[in-house]
Amino acid sequence: MSLSPLHIIKIGGQVIDNQEALDAFLKELSAVQQPWILVHGGGKIATQIGNKMSITAEYHEGRRITDSNTRDLVTMVYGGLVNKKIVAKLQEFQCPAIGLTGADANILKSSRRPVAKIDFGFVGDLTPAGVNINMLQVLLQSGLRPVMAPLTHDGNGEILNTNADTIASAIAIALSSIFHVRLIYCFEKKGVLRNINDNNSVISSIKCSAVPDLIRDNVIADGMIPKIRNAADAITFGVAEVVIGDAANLSLNLSSNAVGTLIIS
Amino acid sequence: MSLSPLHIIKIGGQVIDNQEALDAFLKELSAVQQPWILVHGGGKIATQIGNKMSITAEYHEGRRITDSNTRDLVTMVYGGLVNKKIVAKLQEFQCPAIGLTGADANILKSSRRPVAKIDFGFVGDLTPAGVNINMLQVLLQSGLRPVMAPLTHDGNGEILNTNADTIASAIAIALSSIFHVRLIYCFEKKGVLRNINDNNSVISSIKCSAVPDLIRDNVIADGMIPKIRNAADAITFGVAEVVIGDAANLSLNLSSNAVGTLIIS
Repeated sequence: MSLSPLHIIKIGGQVIDNQEALDAFLKELSAVQQPWILVHGGGKIATQIGNKMSITAEYHEGRRITDSNTRDLVTMVYGGLVNKKIVAKLQEFQCPAIGLTGADANILKSSRRPVAKIDFGFVGDLTPAGVNINMLQVLLQSGLRPVMAPLTHDGNGEILNTNADTIASAIAIALSSIFHVRLIYCFEKKGVLRNINDNNSVISSIKCSAVPDLIRDNVIADGMIPKIRNAADAITFGVAEVVIGDAANLSLNLSSNAVGTLIIS
Repeated sequence: MSLSPLHIIKIGGQVIDNQEALDAFLKELSAVQQPWILVHGGGKIATQIGNKMSITAEYHEGRRITDSNTRDLVTMVYGGLVNKKIVAKLQEFQCPAIGLTGADANILKSSRRPVAKIDFGFVGDLTPAGVNINMLQVLLQSGLRPVMAPLTHDGNGEILNTNADTIASAIAIALSSIFHVRLIYCFEKKGVLRNINDNNSVISSIKCSAVPDLIRDNVIADGMIPKIRNAADAITFGVAEVVIGDAANLSLNLSSNAVGTLIIS
């Protein structure tokens, strides 16, 4: 029996920060008939609001270090402002969106990252085992379209900041047993670029086994490292299709011929 | 055929601002087997965070005037910080809470308040007709416990700030056709007081028809005015039981003998 299709779509900060691009993206998304789950990142707005509140952002390898104040900040901005603006806009387009953090309906339960060389603070590491498959299925079967903020919970009352790429990958892997999942990482470039300064140097496909070499050779660097590792994990653990592409090409990437960088096994 | 019971419980700012009282309240609530919907207000935290961001609060008859910056502030604080902390805490107590604004799943659609003598800004007036009965029923039937932030949407992409007492009343009225609803307004006093300085002067019951006189005589004043009006509306439009009482008496108010002030027809 063939599984029914499900699109899991992740949009990053630069799409969120551009209101016009975001609205166009959400309008396209709302027209999609097949079920989907949207996962969004944060964007610069958390840093801007943090600055107003004298909370400064610290990062390690593209991941934010989350002290208690920063955790409250991202809970407000990601779970409140960004998430609800996206949901309200989708509702304007008659799309039955429901905005959620991982704490809501116990959808995403993570573990606080152990302190090693770096103490990341209130950061949650999510695995596919922490994804509440039944509840996501209930929501999808009710016709709803989940919009996930990059926040999880630890089951002990704490909200944890969690990488949005990892959330998308973990949900995709967990739901691959019951859906034919296409995982689409949307960002502001046409795909993974061989030359970061040339937007036409898109690598059309990357084998999972080639990822370590591409990182070593600095073709994949900075924020792209967790993205590509999550994409490779997804393919390795059973997701049918993974593509990294331009948010402006959403329609193409929902059709049979995905454009951008395909991650392959 | 008798309708099955549903508790709709509203907690206000002073309960939310007291972490210990809030945690005790949520622990009691999580032990309740019968279905419920929790509606929460904002608390001082929005004002405190607004001050840090140089957004000052303005009120008219206990209702906040909501300019664009204030709308973003309350979307963050009510829809993000306050709502998700409550949900994460309920999850700690094994309670299947799901935090929602009115935009989520199109649960609460309001109209932006027309400009009269006062322009309230991004404020939504909600009526029972704006409550998505079917979707609330789907969520309750899935075993979930909705936790509603005091935010609605207008269907045109805008989040609107909405009085939490009104939200509780509108949901109670809308769901009275399919549930036996007890609406419980929980706050920091034992009920409506005849003498505001004497916490033992609780008025045990108030007839809806007596409300205008109590307001004229200043027994009911300030923030209690919208609360009592919403409570009276609820009884007038079919809610089975309405009680205004102490958050610390939640258990009693979920049992057969409610304590506090009963609103009666």
